[in-house]
Amino acid sequence: MSVVLLTGASGFIGSPLVRQLLEQGHQVHATTTRTPEFCTTQPGLYWHRIDLLAGEAGIQSLCRRVGADHLIHLAWCVAPSNYWTTPDNLKWIVATQQLVSAFHAQGGRHAVLAGTCAEYDWRQGLCREDVTPLTPATPYGRSKRLVQEWTMLFGEMHGLSVAWARIFHLFGPWEAETRLVPSVIRALLRGEAAQCSSGEQWRDFLHVEDVAAALVHLSEQQATGVFNVGSGEPVQLKTVIGYLARSLQAEGLVRLGARKASENDPAFLVSDSRRLYALGWRPSFSLHEGLDDAMSWWRSRLLTH
Amino acid sequence: MSVVLLTGASGFIGSPLVRQLLEQGHQVHATTTRTPEFCTTQPGLYWHRIDLLAGEAGIQSLCRRVGADHLIHLAWCVAPSNYWTTPDNLKWIVATQQLVSAFHAQGGRHAVLAGTCAEYDWRQGLCREDVTPLTPATPYGRSKRLVQEWTMLFGEMHGLSVAWARIFHLFGPWEAETRLVPSVIRALLRGEAAQCSSGEQWRDFLHVEDVAAALVHLSEQQATGVFNVGSGEPVQLKTVIGYLARSLQAEGLVRLGARKASENDPAFLVSDSRRLYALGWRPSFSLHEGLDDAMSWWRSRLLTH
Repeated sequence: MSVVLLTGASGFIGSPLVRQLLEQGHQVHATTTRTPEFCTTQPGLYWHRIDLLAGEAGIQSLCRRVGADHLIHLAWCVAPSNYWTTPDNLKWIVATQQLVSAFHAQGGRHAVLAGTCAEYDWRQGLCREDVTPLTPATPYGRSKRLVQEWTMLFGEMHGLSVAWARIFHLFGPWEAETRLVPSVIRALLRGEAAQCSSGEQWRDFLHVEDVAAALVHLSEQQATGVFNVGSGEPVQLKTVIGYLARSLQAEGLVRLGARKASENDPAFLVSDSRRLYALGWRPSFSLHEGLDDAMSWWRSRLLTH
Repeated sequence: MSVVLLTGASGFIGSPLVRQLLEQGHQVHATTTRTPEFCTTQPGLYWHRIDLLAGEAGIQSLCRRVGADHLIHLAWCVAPSNYWTTPDNLKWIVATQQLVSAFHAQGGRHAVLAGTCAEYDWRQGLCREDVTPLTPATPYGRSKRLVQEWTMLFGEMHGLSVAWARIFHLFGPWEAETRLVPSVIRALLRGEAAQCSSGEQWRDFLHVEDVAAALVHLSEQQATGVFNVGSGEPVQLKTVIGYLARSLQAEGLVRLGARKASENDPAFLVSDSRRLYALGWRPSFSLHEGLDDAMSWWRSRLLTH
């Protein structure tokens, strides 16, 4: 049993992560900015309502009170409308430095931090941790890369073991409605046309439960270094869309090519996940099982809302 | 006339920089950790005794009191014995972020920050700002590179104009005694043998007055981007050593090959300085004139101490 400090615990990845950590018998200190009513209470789970951007004193106080062995840091600006470019990215760099420093100062031993495939040069296609150039094109990617390098340097100098998880495309329950999988499912369930790009793009999809499981695995193994978190299996968007349409018996509603892909949308962006697999992690959902899960979640949600 | 906040103002580069800024008619707010007795008083020069590692509050207070338009940030850990590897490098990253943020918050417009040739991959040889890979081998180089990327990102997001000066090999009055030029001059002036490496290495030497002048130029031009600060003229160490020996009529005391160069000592490490030259800066010292100046400074210093 470890004492785990988990930030962003009420978010898309954080929610399943809380559940998995509790199932593994860990004590979880979960931070959130949401109101306490949101948060479920369970044995072994302690909620801490804190805005990590509100200054170092609160972060230091939190770390001292919790006294965690393990940190899993997910919190960051994630509003789909602006996270690529908001100056808040800079604030999260500083807050993360403060958090890692305070976690280490109170005796923390291992940290897992959420990185992103956006740290890579997207013109490269297949991303490998120690090979693919890190020339991110966005403030979000640049900020995450900066934090990665800072945290690795901090870890080396102060003897803190750090795993940096570069998360690729994920999907599942509670995904933002504007993202590909929910937007297609929701349109088709409502009998509306799903306006899509060409769908020729190759991507790496992983169910959010498997992303969370990978982060738990990195924490429990006390892994050190950078790890891509992705399925490692290239799939074209049109294959994903086609599977959703067939499953929902709505193939006539799919409009491939109705939207233009954004200019910076890479033709191929896939994780080489061998380093993560070598640690013993395996996804529990196949792509089809994962998409089935997302469809059934949206179906019940649309029925009840 | 600008109001300039200058950190590290009592250091090797800071001292001539103070004088040049005053000569150009600027008001200089100079920070130092030294005792005030050290500091000369002159019209337009204001000393601020502050430890920039002592926390954000002091930095914010300083910036508010000074209200500078321009920042030139030199302060960093520079003890020759350990600056390559000390964990203080991490503290300087944070302090620099705090300084740049506070300078911007009170209305600062342009910042010049001291970078280093150690940000480059030293296996490359000739270093160009936008071409040579940035894979520094040391905590010092990694820290400086991190600050560069953070500051550039901050500047882009907040509209602060930033010039990042990657300083190459410099020499001149007050250089640390263990460095090449002072150690050879001092040995030869004392009639002792100068124990040297093979001297085959190619380097880029620039007199500290010209380094300071380059930083003043970047500040006055409100230049934006990364600029190598070097002569751009490759010279072998044995050429430098030979000139000193001939000038001091002590050629018989030079022992080329007596020391082994350190393993990481690159064969060729030279600045491509065309970007700086394109801004109109020119060195005022030739290599020989600079070395003559260093010799005469050490001669008078050794006579009076």
